[in-house]
Amino acid sequence: MAGPTLEEAFGQVIRELRLKQGMSQEELSFECGRHRTYVSLLERGRNSPSIRTLWMLAEALQVSPASLVRRIESKL
Amino acid sequence: MAGPTLEEAFGQVIRELRLKQGMSQEELSFECGRHRTYVSLLERGRNSPSIRTLWMLAEALQVSPASLVRRIESKL
Repeated sequence: MAGPTLEEAFGQVIRELRLKQGMSQEELSFECGRHRTYVSLLERGRNSPSIRTLWMLAEALQVSPASLVRRIESKL
Repeated sequence: MAGPTLEEAFGQVIRELRLKQGMSQEELSFECGRHRTYVSLLERGRNSPSIRTLWMLAEALQVSPASLVRRIESKL
């Protein structure tokens, strides 16, 4: 069975961290200055974000960018 | 004095790791499947790469993506 793609793993991590923080997609998108539909695309692994988006999301989710990336690695 | 932008820090880390490996920009661009002019843009902090490019570069430079991101964090 094929594992998730990088983008899917990224989306899963973002969604898990968001739910852990008790945040809605609206709240997360507001915090990271992105549109809610973009956050929704990311969570479904439909877009490969830039490292700037990675940084903004990590800050909004109160984890370090490196910790976010480690979580992605562990899903691949 | 303002520190480097995220993109500049990324570029510095890529360049440092590339030189540590004794690789030319040509060799790195071949290894990561990107054009040399794109790698040159990245090293000068002129482009915000996608996480897929981050992953490809980390693999080509033989470090983990999380380790690459930690190095960027330490420059900011």
